[in-house]
Amino acid sequence: MPSASVSYSVTIRLELPARPTAVSELTTVMEHSGAIVTALDVTASGAGRLAVDVTAATRGQEHAEELVRSLRGLEGVEIGKVSDRVFLAHLGGKLEVRSKVPLRNRDDLSLAYTPGVARVCEAIAANPEDARRLTIKRNTVAVVTDGSAVLGLGNLGPLAALPVMEGKAVLFKRFANVDAFPICLDTQDTEEIITAVKAIAPVFAGINLEDIAAPRCFEVERRLREELDIPVFHDDQHGTAIVVLAALTNALKVVGKDIGEVRLVMSGAGAAGTAVLKLLLAAGVRDAVVVDVDGIVHRDRADLAPELAWTAEHTNPRGLTGTLRDAIVDAEVFVGLSAGGILDGDDIATMADDAIVFALANPVPEVDPAEAAEHAAVVATGRSDFANQINNVLAFPGVFRGLIDARSHTVDEAMLLAAARALADTVHPDELNATYIVPSVFHAESTTAVAAAVERAAKGEPPT
Amino acid sequence: MPSASVSYSVTIRLELPARPTAVSELTTVMEHSGAIVTALDVTASGAGRLAVDVTAATRGQEHAEELVRSLRGLEGVEIGKVSDRVFLAHLGGKLEVRSKVPLRNRDDLSLAYTPGVARVCEAIAANPEDARRLTIKRNTVAVVTDGSAVLGLGNLGPLAALPVMEGKAVLFKRFANVDAFPICLDTQDTEEIITAVKAIAPVFAGINLEDIAAPRCFEVERRLREELDIPVFHDDQHGTAIVVLAALTNALKVVGKDIGEVRLVMSGAGAAGTAVLKLLLAAGVRDAVVVDVDGIVHRDRADLAPELAWTAEHTNPRGLTGTLRDAIVDAEVFVGLSAGGILDGDDIATMADDAIVFALANPVPEVDPAEAAEHAAVVATGRSDFANQINNVLAFPGVFRGLIDARSHTVDEAMLLAAARALADTVHPDELNATYIVPSVFHAESTTAVAAAVERAAKGEPPT
Repeated sequence: MPSASVSYSVTIRLELPARPTAVSELTTVMEHSGAIVTALDVTASGAGRLAVDVTAATRGQEHAEELVRSLRGLEGVEIGKVSDRVFLAHLGGKLEVRSKVPLRNRDDLSLAYTPGVARVCEAIAANPEDARRLTIKRNTVAVVTDGSAVLGLGNLGPLAALPVMEGKAVLFKRFANVDAFPICLDTQDTEEIITAVKAIAPVFAGINLEDIAAPRCFEVERRLREELDIPVFHDDQHGTAIVVLAALTNALKVVGKDIGEVRLVMSGAGAAGTAVLKLLLAAGVRDAVVVDVDGIVHRDRADLAPELAWTAEHTNPRGLTGTLRDAIVDAEVFVGLSAGGILDGDDIATMADDAIVFALANPVPEVDPAEAAEHAAVVATGRSDFANQINNVLAFPGVFRGLIDARSHTVDEAMLLAAARALADTVHPDELNATYIVPSVFHAESTTAVAAAVERAAKGEPPT
Repeated sequence: MPSASVSYSVTIRLELPARPTAVSELTTVMEHSGAIVTALDVTASGAGRLAVDVTAATRGQEHAEELVRSLRGLEGVEIGKVSDRVFLAHLGGKLEVRSKVPLRNRDDLSLAYTPGVARVCEAIAANPEDARRLTIKRNTVAVVTDGSAVLGLGNLGPLAALPVMEGKAVLFKRFANVDAFPICLDTQDTEEIITAVKAIAPVFAGINLEDIAAPRCFEVERRLREELDIPVFHDDQHGTAIVVLAALTNALKVVGKDIGEVRLVMSGAGAAGTAVLKLLLAAGVRDAVVVDVDGIVHRDRADLAPELAWTAEHTNPRGLTGTLRDAIVDAEVFVGLSAGGILDGDDIATMADDAIVFALANPVPEVDPAEAAEHAAVVATGRSDFANQINNVLAFPGVFRGLIDARSHTVDEAMLLAAARALADTVHPDELNATYIVPSVFHAESTTAVAAAVERAAKGEPPT
């Protein structure tokens, strides 16, 4: 049974007789049904009745309905409006476009619009770089999707992807003061995506690709990087890679091993897996073995797709063949970006001493983290309810802040490595331990540290 | 010599000796140079010196430099920073993308982003109409240009058009609380524009085309209206048409003439002219004569382009030929959407008694409005420094507010007529006179009146 979650939180408006035990009867019923009460307001009291708004986390929609049914059993109760907090938070959308200039009178109008604006247009026509000073190109990023791989939900299309892209824009603003705007494309054709993004590029200082299915995302990113003069970043790939590398850097410190000496096994060869692999190799990993649904990737495997052929060339120096279980025997590091529940504690027990396990499949990790922890020294997941959450929010806002502040026209591996190093360093030596290898997403320093490192790298300056 | 304008406003920071006449010496020098002082702050005083920030409107950049040189002649003055107010207002761009939801902690994160957001995505996938409730599609419009006809400046390209599109978004927010976002397309190919706008459409509740050159704009609009399920409005055409029709409706009331009885001459057959013509015909004009650079448009004129062929079919019932000067003899109404200075007072004198003259070319009207007023009963221009300014701001914010609130999938002639009628009616009978046929852009009622009328028309309800 799943536990109660704020994602299924309801606010129930009700009235009941003003007897002395009214509130405790109410909360007792709710807690007995398995809900977690998170807020309670008596909004009115009088004529022998209490009006109450009570908010509780439930296990899901059915549980929420069951909860309301239980409340109807309270003597004299009258249930009013039942609101779903997630839907309430989304009413009308999560973003607004605000003006930064006042428009109180004709003078304001002639400064911000015609005729004054004409002079700004002419200045930009004469010197296009001025757009980064005099327009929203200064600070604006497009969050672009085709809706083909929305969260773990699959191909929902552009409209249903919009709440995620809005959420991403909310994170950009909250963590790095970047203005981000969602672009949900009504096409899933590679060439049409490329054409559309190139067409809208003038307004933006950078492109953040999001939730575009593999292998399409590789070609879209490669071509846009070639053909645009602004940085193009695919968060599902590079954001994940930065945070995994930062976490691995710190996990290796905890167990006292060297990145160039460890045997690393990666499960998953999709968009995220391939990007993580490339960054880990760039960071010094020399013995990586990649496993996909067809087993270990090696040079002699039949029918290797182009991306897998590259992987076969650059990994598996000991020429292993077989399954994931074969691969992880004696491995020092396991990184999973694949599917839930494919390993158990016994499998982890076959790894080397002081093993590091990153089981990042969501919502169900490759191995139960509690089981893994019985045999591994460091365990991380993508979930917020375990220690060491590998969360892209630790990377992408700072990366774009740095790219924008450097007025960078590109994003390259050196910048990703700099971001990972800076993120790892935000965990101070006296904080570092097996259950704290990455900071919390609400850690105040991480975004600014990542931004500064990326800005320096983008300007070609050495790290501090 | 042009007069001083706030579009060339400078703020000058300076210090001068604290003698009793210091401030008056300063403003005297400024006014003698022809500048208009609009603000003065003594920001510090001490040790025998005053620090002053003074703002003044000038006639242009050269005049501003001349002004600074004159100030250097003041005894003991020290000139500091000189700021151009227009450029100051544009620093960093005029818009920001703001979050409407708080992100204080993990609970907030799981409501606005993963995992909670997944439920909203699934709801929209199941029922796409829900996007108009649960995403920014509720209230968001794209302001789309290809930069081919920016203001009166011409083909400046997408980047240099951005300040205008941002300004438009500022007006949308200020006057109708519509969230508008600029889309400046890096293509001027008709098919590529159509493809790009269709690709980005899912996020938006409407498309406002802006500053796209004719004849490309006709095909772009026609095709997008056919192929999209959201309203597509070309402000340069339809916004202008609404305000002209509203103004003409009231001007006819002032002179006591009937729209079906007047002879109307239109100078200009471009995008705006053609749209205005069509709406005037729809509103009941029966005798319109259109004149372009090649003279009066009539059925037998050689080489009529497709748009002009339509015009020839639907206008000029008396089969006039010749020039603009031939056309306006005995005409009751002149509407100019063409070029500056093509008529003089003597030409207006040949019109019928109680003539109506709309000279809307900008910045120089077709005829000097002061000269026109000697012979015409009502004169309007596009300029803010004469009475009766025909300004699209009176129409487009309210039109989109109404379309959005009606969740309209289209915009049609009935809605444009309703908007014009509502706008005309915001001038109350006791306010109406020859110098007040349209409200000020800061008139509180006009946007809401237009919005309500468009919403009713979009819902198929009769006007109130």
